Amino acid sequence: MRHVPGTPFDALQDGDKLKEECGVFGVIGVADAANFVALGLHALQHRGQEAGGIVTYDPEQGFNSARRFGYVRDNFTRADVMATLPGSLGIGHVRYSTAGSKGATAIRDVQPFFGEFAMGGAAIAHNGNLTNAAALRRELIERGSIFQSSSDSECIIHLMARSIQTSIAERIKDALRRVEGAFSIVAMTRTKLIGVRDAHGVRPLVLGRLGDSGWCLSSETCALDIVGAEFVREIDPGEMVVIEGNKVISTRPFTPAQSRFCIFEQVYFSRPDSILGGRSVYETRRQIGVELAKEAPVDADLVCPVPDSGTPAAIGYSQQSGIPYAMGIIRNQYMGRTFIEPTEQIRNMGVRLKLNVNRALIQGKRVILVDDSVVRGTTSRKIKDMILDAGAAEVHFRIASPPTAWPCFYGVDTPERSKLLAATMTEDEMRDWIGVDSLKFISLDGLYRAAGESAGRDPKAPRFCDACFSGEYPVAPSDKLAEGFEMKVAE
Amino acid sequence: MRHVPGTPFDALQDGDKLKEECGVFGVIGVADAANFVALGLHALQHRGQEAGGIVTYDPEQGFNSARRFGYVRDNFTRADVMATLPGSLGIGHVRYSTAGSKGATAIRDVQPFFGEFAMGGAAIAHNGNLTNAAALRRELIERGSIFQSSSDSECIIHLMARSIQTSIAERIKDALRRVEGAFSIVAMTRTKLIGVRDAHGVRPLVLGRLGDSGWCLSSETCALDIVGAEFVREIDPGEMVVIEGNKVISTRPFTPAQSRFCIFEQVYFSRPDSILGGRSVYETRRQIGVELAKEAPVDADLVCPVPDSGTPAAIGYSQQSGIPYAMGIIRNQYMGRTFIEPTEQIRNMGVRLKLNVNRALIQGKRVILVDDSVVRGTTSRKIKDMILDAGAAEVHFRIASPPTAWPCFYGVDTPERSKLLAATMTEDEMRDWIGVDSLKFISLDGLYRAAGESAGRDPKAPRFCDACFSGEYPVAPSDKLAEGFEMKVAE
Amino acid sequence: MRHVPGTPFDALQDGDKLKEECGVFGVIGVADAANFVALGLHALQHRGQEAGGIVTYDPEQGFNSARRFGYVRDNFTRADVMATLPGSLGIGHVRYSTAGSKGATAIRDVQPFFGEFAMGGAAIAHNGNLTNAAALRRELIERGSIFQSSSDSECIIHLMARSIQTSIAERIKDALRRVEGAFSIVAMTRTKLIGVRDAHGVRPLVLGRLGDSGWCLSSETCALDIVGAEFVREIDPGEMVVIEGNKVISTRPFTPAQSRFCIFEQVYFSRPDSILGGRSVYETRRQIGVELAKEAPVDADLVCPVPDSGTPAAIGYSQQSGIPYAMGIIRNQYMGRTFIEPTEQIRNMGVRLKLNVNRALIQGKRVILVDDSVVRGTTSRKIKDMILDAGAAEVHFRIASPPTAWPCFYGVDTPERSKLLAATMTEDEMRDWIGVDSLKFISLDGLYRAAGESAGRDPKAPRFCDACFSGEYPVAPSDKLAEGFEMKVAE
Amino acid sequence: MRHVPGTPFDALQDGDKLKEECGVFGVIGVADAANFVALGLHALQHRGQEAGGIVTYDPEQGFNSARRFGYVRDNFTRADVMATLPGSLGIGHVRYSTAGSKGATAIRDVQPFFGEFAMGGAAIAHNGNLTNAAALRRELIERGSIFQSSSDSECIIHLMARSIQTSIAERIKDALRRVEGAFSIVAMTRTKLIGVRDAHGVRPLVLGRLGDSGWCLSSETCALDIVGAEFVREIDPGEMVVIEGNKVISTRPFTPAQSRFCIFEQVYFSRPDSILGGRSVYETRRQIGVELAKEAPVDADLVCPVPDSGTPAAIGYSQQSGIPYAMGIIRNQYMGRTFIEPTEQIRNMGVRLKLNVNRALIQGKRVILVDDSVVRGTTSRKIKDMILDAGAAEVHFRIASPPTAWPCFYGVDTPERSKLLAATMTEDEMRDWIGVDSLKFISLDGLYRAAGESAGRDPKAPRFCDACFSGEYPVAPSDKLAEGFEMKVAE
Repeated sequence: MRHVPGTPFDALQDGDKLKEECGVFGVIGVADAANFVALGLHALQHRGQEAGGIVTYDPEQGFNSARRFGYVRDNFTRADVMATLPGSLGIGHVRYSTAGSKGATAIRDVQPFFGEFAMGGAAIAHNGNLTNAAALRRELIERGSIFQSSSDSECIIHLMARSIQTSIAERIKDALRRVEGAFSIVAMTRTKLIGVRDAHGVRPLVLGRLGDSGWCLSSETCALDIVGAEFVREIDPGEMVVIEGNKVISTRPFTPAQSRFCIFEQVYFSRPDSILGGRSVYETRRQIGVELAKEAPVDADLVCPVPDSGTPAAIGYSQQSGIPYAMGIIRNQYMGRTFIEPTEQIRNMGVRLKLNVNRALIQGKRVILVDDSVVRGTTSRKIKDMILDAGAAEVHFRIASPPTAWPCFYGVDTPERSKLLAATMTEDEMRDWIGVDSLKFISLDGLYRAAGESAGRDPKAPRFCDACFSGEYPVAPSDKLAEGFEMKVAE
Repeated sequence: MRHVPGTPFDALQDGDKLKEECGVFGVIGVADAANFVALGLHALQHRGQEAGGIVTYDPEQGFNSARRFGYVRDNFTRADVMATLPGSLGIGHVRYSTAGSKGATAIRDVQPFFGEFAMGGAAIAHNGNLTNAAALRRELIERGSIFQSSSDSECIIHLMARSIQTSIAERIKDALRRVEGAFSIVAMTRTKLIGVRDAHGVRPLVLGRLGDSGWCLSSETCALDIVGAEFVREIDPGEMVVIEGNKVISTRPFTPAQSRFCIFEQVYFSRPDSILGGRSVYETRRQIGVELAKEAPVDADLVCPVPDSGTPAAIGYSQQSGIPYAMGIIRNQYMGRTFIEPTEQIRNMGVRLKLNVNRALIQGKRVILVDDSVVRGTTSRKIKDMILDAGAAEVHFRIASPPTAWPCFYGVDTPERSKLLAATMTEDEMRDWIGVDSLKFISLDGLYRAAGESAGRDPKAPRFCDACFSGEYPVAPSDKLAEGFEMKVAE
Repeated sequence: MRHVPGTPFDALQDGDKLKEECGVFGVIGVADAANFVALGLHALQHRGQEAGGIVTYDPEQGFNSARRFGYVRDNFTRADVMATLPGSLGIGHVRYSTAGSKGATAIRDVQPFFGEFAMGGAAIAHNGNLTNAAALRRELIERGSIFQSSSDSECIIHLMARSIQTSIAERIKDALRRVEGAFSIVAMTRTKLIGVRDAHGVRPLVLGRLGDSGWCLSSETCALDIVGAEFVREIDPGEMVVIEGNKVISTRPFTPAQSRFCIFEQVYFSRPDSILGGRSVYETRRQIGVELAKEAPVDADLVCPVPDSGTPAAIGYSQQSGIPYAMGIIRNQYMGRTFIEPTEQIRNMGVRLKLNVNRALIQGKRVILVDDSVVRGTTSRKIKDMILDAGAAEVHFRIASPPTAWPCFYGVDTPERSKLLAATMTEDEMRDWIGVDSLKFISLDGLYRAAGESAGRDPKAPRFCDACFSGEYPVAPSDKLAEGFEMKVAE
Repeated sequence: MRHVPGTPFDALQDGDKLKEECGVFGVIGVADAANFVALGLHALQHRGQEAGGIVTYDPEQGFNSARRFGYVRDNFTRADVMATLPGSLGIGHVRYSTAGSKGATAIRDVQPFFGEFAMGGAAIAHNGNLTNAAALRRELIERGSIFQSSSDSECIIHLMARSIQTSIAERIKDALRRVEGAFSIVAMTRTKLIGVRDAHGVRPLVLGRLGDSGWCLSSETCALDIVGAEFVREIDPGEMVVIEGNKVISTRPFTPAQSRFCIFEQVYFSRPDSILGGRSVYETRRQIGVELAKEAPVDADLVCPVPDSGTPAAIGYSQQSGIPYAMGIIRNQYMGRTFIEPTEQIRNMGVRLKLNVNRALIQGKRVILVDDSVVRGTTSRKIKDMILDAGAAEVHFRIASPPTAWPCFYGVDTPERSKLLAATMTEDEMRDWIGVDSLKFISLDGLYRAAGESAGRDPKAPRFCDACFSGEYPVAPSDKLAEGFEMKVAE
């Protein structure tokens, strides 16, 4: 990833986690909409840390936009920036990085995207990824569209510009019927706030009520909490809502399809204080720990989370197993940029900047470490080193997700398949490569049970998109197939 | 506090916590000393977030210094800054704010302080507070010294400048024999690294070994871990160590006194992964929770920490009581600056920026909240509001320290006595003012037991400085008495 | 004008001068093209001080672009910026402000503009103004183009995108045949540098040779000097040159028209060390002073320029009249931002920041002040005040251009007609309003003579565009006429 | 010189001009004193471009100070900075670089200096240089003073701190009686504005009246003009003025000495619109040109200044000789930072960034170039190259000062003697080394005549300090002599 000057940089997380690519938030019917959007995006910052943008509309000032690299708290807290965003209607976006971009994100890739049409302007913010964007882009350029970004999402606004429909809402439908892949979209015209989810509902989108006159759309419920909005309901897969004044009009513009919500939102992406499917994400994760303790018990002295994402599952594991829960690894709350290493190099400095072992606690103990996932495995090895250096007697890894063996094409930044540890090794090989006494992943069925499917996964009609674990892609990734990606052959 | 542009600002913590005022770190005998100091200060950032400074010495470049507002990670990670700090010997300081400063800290108040003497230069970094600084300052100005800062600690370097001793180490002794109060000092000359603790040993200071040739001095052991140093021992109360080459020479320059280490370091200031008195701080805090569960049991559904400082005690409380531990409040990891509030104000926005209730988990539950301390009580009220808004059935506060009823004069930023909730209310009155179903503090004896004194507190010779709880000050605060502060009358 | 933070701001010039809107520069066939473009733009900074941009192409890195507010010297001297602009082919643009923008320029309005077409990318930089841009823009949006800027020049790149031609050069021709108005354009593809001037040749464009392999295109010759290029020739009105390798291919794509070069380039816009029509601009301006002394003599002690633009004409006036030339007004070379005025306001502070009267020289003298033009007249009044405050006996204004009575629609920022002093007053009324002893403008014939037309202006076929003086517009300003602008009625 | 990020950098001037080291300004008895000081320093910016500082006093806010690298217009125009400087009394300083500093200036070297004394605080700003500062500094350190800067001027405030006088004005006298060298000082207490000049009056200092209640002290009269103050008189050599309320009390604290004002202020340092000795500096410089034309005539076509400092003398030379004055070299008004040179290096790029030859004017002409001085001669060679490259037939240099053969020790940054071209070459050798057809300097007598001494220089009692030309130092440079500097042996 490009090093963006002035942007904090989470060295460890970058190396070895899947990263959600976006969060979206919109609000209508309030004074100072931009302030609400800024707070909402701040609560969604975990979904995209690289850049953020806000667009608002005010009858006198027209559409205004501010797009910045860096954290919401560093840009959209500045009075000079916020003063440029008047109006009672606004949408915003935080992003991690662009599918399609060769490495670097330029500021022109930062959403929301804006287009001026004959009937007025519109802005859209997209969470997800289009699997036929490359083909669409070629076609649009051929016909005279000029792309300003390297982002796939820009296709949507060009498709809208070329639609022959006379309202923007209808043009959005036209455009989205041409795209394939995953999308949860928040859009706005001069008077309307619009939300849409693709037919499978891969990415989340929720509706909230703000006082008597306002409405919000948000990727997660935690952003409703920060602005004091009441959670109304999730937008359904395949649903489009158009909000104007106090009316929320719902339509179903797409061919119905089976619901396939991203299961990794449950495991890692969503914040633990968000609500998915009527249950706290924290509780689902704790339940994963309970299932894991049942599936993969081991005799030990302490259950320690790899902070912070392993914490709820570690609590669940401890409660189910009766082995005491302990903070064996402490996370430095002032993480950020990379320090200059002295000439006499410090072993595993990258991890030390973020984590420190609670040495006096760990010494001589048999330790169960609970982490959310293993991607490349490089961080797992370094953590194992730290724990052993501190004098642990045994180290047992328990992972709160099945082996990640397939890339995601629906809005998550995944390494190439060949870089995924689970794509090339068995569980035992991984254990040896990481160098721990034992390593166990939760089963896919166990994960489904923890997520509320008491019967486990129905292989004929799985309730979630679990392609990263199963290799079963609900939408064929057509651009990738054209590039030579080989899908799993049915067994 | 002055709003320092560009400095992250922890709105909640500022309002309602005691704040350690400083952390110090020094290293000798390594290439690129400044890089080690930067890492050490980063690990000590929790002891002072407002500003930091580093001084190094290189035979060719002489003494060099860089002092900045803001986090270590934002300043001392920059190649251009670090390039100005060559040498194999260096010390550094992070600070919260200056005793003596009227509100604002100027950059000239940021330590280490440097003085050029006839026999060469020296720099010092001071953690603690001098209780006779005002009188010393008046005297020094009268005699022609020019103060550059509003910091009390600058007295030390002027006393050194006026000493008739011919070595810097002896001048430091001369100077420190004139001062009263608490100090853990790290100092350097062109060839020596020097550490000193006052006779009571109020503030911490530890010695570490770095490879074959290097030595470190640090406020806490967690900073030894980050640079890969081995913990050797604590510097004793009243001890001075002078390190040159591979020799560590120890002397006892001051009149011996009873050891009175700050007990609040155990409760809150020190990092949980540091080691104090041979035990993990985390473990001591967990033990406080155990004692608290014994002293103040209550029937409930969940034990939740107020993150992050209440976490270890909440774990201990849960383990002792058998009531499940849960993350009922989630801390936003992207905290920072203050957002602009919309015209339609958001209830308790300051707290919302930092914390969010795990609504789906809390609803209908009887919740025990474990926090480290109550200072003004304002944040406790807001947290109670949030928990009740989320639908909790009952809220019980359990506090991991006794009531804070007296100000600290030894290097901790405390509100005036009249602002301390416990100085004006009984426990029951506090419960009603905060508005919770029950409120209990650990007893002073219980705290001593958790800190390893199985017999509790010996009222004749307490092992710790607990003046903030007991009003018994080991060193009379002479400047404050002159200003009219009334000490506790012996009962 | 919007206050752009960090951008120097010439308070005086802004208030009361016509402002050229752009300068363009391009280079091909050299290593580090961006460094040449930066130098060229620096030499053209007087043509546009608000913002600048550079695009380069490198076979490995593709097209790269950097666009910034502020001076070239503040942005395009930074190693980090220049490192992002590799390649041997590049173009650049400096701008003042956008026709069409409501006040503020956004960074997206800064040129060069870039478009990705089916046959590859292209970038263009435009000096001039299109008089049918509003109509074109409406049409393009209707057909599905998405505009990213408020700049008229963006029409060109959308017209190119929709052309059915298969080479970029041909698409440029297609596009430019649809536009009306004034343009001198520098464009680039992956392999070609392209220059075009409209059929009237209103704005300048010159060709230079750089060593054995390189070529430049530039608004003025002064930018050839800074990069060490040899001046080859002016691009002709209506000519297009396509430079690739060592070949310069010239075509005439437009209907031939009479040459009408902007006469204000001679008076004020171009730098005095540039060459126009084979003669130094300085020399033309000196000659204006000579003509002015013949047309409007007056008895006085000193001839003083209003610095710096009145200097050459003042020298000419002095030489012709025999009255000594003197620097009666001194310009502060550190001009820039606006200072905060004290509560006790300082008379004419804006002018004082830029100019100071040479008090000891002026006292008791009859002074002739030579200025280049009078637009609103507000600055002329302030300068008169300063001169009289310093004790001058008489003040005579001599203006090196005819009365500016009509707005320019070809790329110059002019106030509305009603704000032009000469649109509403006679010469005598202006003299009284400004408050000087005499005021004389050069005649249009005198100006033509100074510019090399010994017979003066041919009213049937004037050699220059002098619409700002004469109201005779060579191209009908169709957008403006649609908005209600009233052209001069033929007498 | 250190490259100060963010500070404009005048590449040419740096290389080959003597540089004044400071300008001072103070004001009392006005609202918003800081705004006046900022304007005054802006007008004095030519005396010191590297850094500036302002101190003000307000009864409620006490003393406040802001010190910054860079131009006044970039720092002291910011509302956030100026808001920190309340009060009706203030002083300021602009500086070039520190005598005594090894290369780099730290912010702690930026004046005014401030000291807190038993009777209250005081701030001082010093223009000039102390010739016994090194010895004083050693003595003060020996006695326990701690220096915060590398600036010689800091000695004054330490001497004040150690004085036994009971008023600050008396302490200033005490301190200044101990120092040797040149000083024009502006100082302030809580209620008084104080100005002092050394007994020889080497550096300028003037008094101005501001409205009914205010007074100013300034290095030059041009700074009185910008704030609208009336010039009252020069402070006399050896005079001290103490201004409080509406009273200006004058005393003569030093042993009387012959007046020896720096003649280089006339030649180059002072602004042309300032008044020295009752006459415009511009007029003195024009008169130098007149004298030079008499002393060193030559047959030629044009007289051109080297801009901007050669301009007045060139005008005088033209008027005396009858040879037309012309702007043969144009200065780029957007000078500043250094550009990145392309791989294919551009001949004399440094000069090109600042100057361009008016090629069409110069071609085939015999040109007289008038410059203010020759220091190293390197720039003269480059300018000669540019003029010849442009096709000049002959080049004749005429220099408006005698050969600069000796360093200045009184506040001017001069190269070591060995780097001064005139210290090692005769006039003819210099002509050949520079490579021009003729080179002539004005004589010392001619310079005195132009400066108003009709009889020329009185070798027994010269009216000016002309040590840089004559080697006759009015004050023995004792620190330099101790370092081995050899003064001129009397002939």
